[in-house]
Amino acid sequence: MVKINQNYAKLPGSYLFSTIGKKVREYSEAHPDADIIRLGIGDVTQPLAPAIISALHSAVDEMGAAETFRGYAPDLGYEFLRNAIAEQDFKARGCDIEPDEIFVSDGAKCDCGNIQEIFGLDNKIAVCDPVYPVYVDSNVMAGRTGTYDEAAQCFGDVIYMPCTEENGFAPELPGEVPDLIYLCFPNNPTGAVIKKDALQAWVDYANKNGSVILYDAAYEAYISEPEVPHSIYECEGAKTCAIEFRSFSKTAGFTGLRLGCTVVPKELTVEGQKLWSLWARRHGTKYNGAPYIVQRAGEAVYSEEGRRQIKEQIAWYMGNAGIILDGLKEAGYTAFGGVNAPYIWLKTPDRMTSWEFFDYLLSEAGVVGTPGSGFGPGGEHYFRLTSFGSRENTVKAMDRIRKL
Amino acid sequence: MVKINQNYAKLPGSYLFSTIGKKVREYSEAHPDADIIRLGIGDVTQPLAPAIISALHSAVDEMGAAETFRGYAPDLGYEFLRNAIAEQDFKARGCDIEPDEIFVSDGAKCDCGNIQEIFGLDNKIAVCDPVYPVYVDSNVMAGRTGTYDEAAQCFGDVIYMPCTEENGFAPELPGEVPDLIYLCFPNNPTGAVIKKDALQAWVDYANKNGSVILYDAAYEAYISEPEVPHSIYECEGAKTCAIEFRSFSKTAGFTGLRLGCTVVPKELTVEGQKLWSLWARRHGTKYNGAPYIVQRAGEAVYSEEGRRQIKEQIAWYMGNAGIILDGLKEAGYTAFGGVNAPYIWLKTPDRMTSWEFFDYLLSEAGVVGTPGSGFGPGGEHYFRLTSFGSRENTVKAMDRIRKL
Repeated sequence: MVKINQNYAKLPGSYLFSTIGKKVREYSEAHPDADIIRLGIGDVTQPLAPAIISALHSAVDEMGAAETFRGYAPDLGYEFLRNAIAEQDFKARGCDIEPDEIFVSDGAKCDCGNIQEIFGLDNKIAVCDPVYPVYVDSNVMAGRTGTYDEAAQCFGDVIYMPCTEENGFAPELPGEVPDLIYLCFPNNPTGAVIKKDALQAWVDYANKNGSVILYDAAYEAYISEPEVPHSIYECEGAKTCAIEFRSFSKTAGFTGLRLGCTVVPKELTVEGQKLWSLWARRHGTKYNGAPYIVQRAGEAVYSEEGRRQIKEQIAWYMGNAGIILDGLKEAGYTAFGGVNAPYIWLKTPDRMTSWEFFDYLLSEAGVVGTPGSGFGPGGEHYFRLTSFGSRENTVKAMDRIRKL
Repeated sequence: MVKINQNYAKLPGSYLFSTIGKKVREYSEAHPDADIIRLGIGDVTQPLAPAIISALHSAVDEMGAAETFRGYAPDLGYEFLRNAIAEQDFKARGCDIEPDEIFVSDGAKCDCGNIQEIFGLDNKIAVCDPVYPVYVDSNVMAGRTGTYDEAAQCFGDVIYMPCTEENGFAPELPGEVPDLIYLCFPNNPTGAVIKKDALQAWVDYANKNGSVILYDAAYEAYISEPEVPHSIYECEGAKTCAIEFRSFSKTAGFTGLRLGCTVVPKELTVEGQKLWSLWARRHGTKYNGAPYIVQRAGEAVYSEEGRRQIKEQIAWYMGNAGIILDGLKEAGYTAFGGVNAPYIWLKTPDRMTSWEFFDYLLSEAGVVGTPGSGFGPGGEHYFRLTSFGSRENTVKAMDRIRKL
């Protein structure tokens, strides 16, 4: 008699963004005339840059001719893309990462969710609180987190690292040593960043204690301040303790195109085994590569033209972030982030819970954001807005919020 | 101290096709002038059909304009594609499958590899022998298979179902009842098919015993005989016991484009839980959708023009299959498959092992095939050739084999 994976039953409620979608759908059905502005899910709205569109068209033409058609991609991804990533994202910043330490994939979400599979079930994970739900949920599904405590909104076997206004939303080194440490900077959802010396302390901590850092750098392209590291490999010794995830989703608007990569340095060994080999095996067995045309689009992101165009696009989104930050300040809110990240993290007024504020903002202003508590108990009384809306909608949303 | 997933150490050798790739690379380096013909990996060579290329270009243009740009895809995939699949792959064949029972993904390999995650670790799997390696390997990685017996080339806790010349390469219902049953028809690697009454017996067996059938229909487009079912849902009762995987890779040449889907009927419950809900949760947490442009390409496969064009393409590949079958017969080989499937399964001459024959064929004829033993011990003394090469190469390969 077949049995299901009972760990799924431990997951609290449905996936955050599915719940938001459902609530908004229900509200729209009840209020068909409502003009709803979505600043909730971190989805981009700007069209793909011309250099990327042009690369896509060329690659599509290649797929239509026998001489240039491409079938299965190489296991790690095409060299042209891995070379560009190694050169521009890493070597240009002084990080000694080789193209064959880069695994091209269909996005950082998938890689962040799948990476835990190469580790034993008896590892203890540490996550920031609040945190992007995929890190915890994928470990719950695997059975690595213990049971869920409804009252505390926590899993028994997870080390939660509070990220609060007091510590500048940067976690402290935990007293109990975790085996796997998830870090994300610039942070989703708080928009906080980590300075190089603070990140170096994490690297030293991991190397000293035999932990592995799973570093999500999906938002590095939004960094505007010079002293903020774009990659964990800017820190000394990171190659022996860290895996890094990178994404084209927010960098170049690839949310609907799907492309990311994971860096597993060859020097990174656990119990005498190269994690590179384990991830290569997982990649080769349970995955089959990102589409050729999308990898060519990724290559175009690194062309001179592409670089200029996506820089403009990011600057444009950060213009939205400025509008949101200014609007919130004028309306009397306390808000964080929005300087090195596309996310603005605000305190709900009058100690409203995050979901109360969600309902309030949806019904009174027609604005959809993301409840902070959806990212963990530490997110309670906070709320996330994103700068990915259109300019018009962002301005309109802030007007409405100011008038509340 | 972090620990790795020790189950990976149980995997015998590297992934089959990586090993073949390595052997061929080494041979090419040693013999730079060798004209190698690859009939090994099941990768297509024909360019994408014009209707698909045209759909891709249109979708790329949409991604370049703000009004038509698409970000994250809906969790299950776009409705336009799910509707087309439900209508033409299922309803047209009398299978009552609804669009929201279809999960669009980036390919059947990923889904076949990931599906086991929603089941408990204490389930016993049954696989055909020989078998596509992903089914077993993904279960090894999860820790569901016991240890590997080098001598027997088998995992202790897996039920192997022999597929031999005697039983027409269709397995018998196992005496020991498995929890999860992997079936693939038309079969990879043997090219065998299953008739409807035989498949109905499997459905009845699964329903009676509380097993779930994981049915890989990736090659259904190659079926030429009328009495062969294209979907397990053609059988009565399949919706309460079967999950089906479908692929655009071989159907429409999408190996480099990446598109597939998995059908999880809402009636399919295990321990009172809908498997649909578990797979939806997994899909929503660890995956982020197939690219919009690729889903539009998939839709074009179902257009009148697209259908005609891919039918021609498949007929063309099956022309290769005929050439291979004829060539092998002339050369005195015993061969199977190649009628309802793109694979030809031949007996090695003189009781050579599969890998001996691989080396022999590579060095003497410059032809790359796939050793049958790579698909399990039951594949020993067999060898797989595919009809996905170019016509010229296929003819040339058979000329060389005839002359051996």
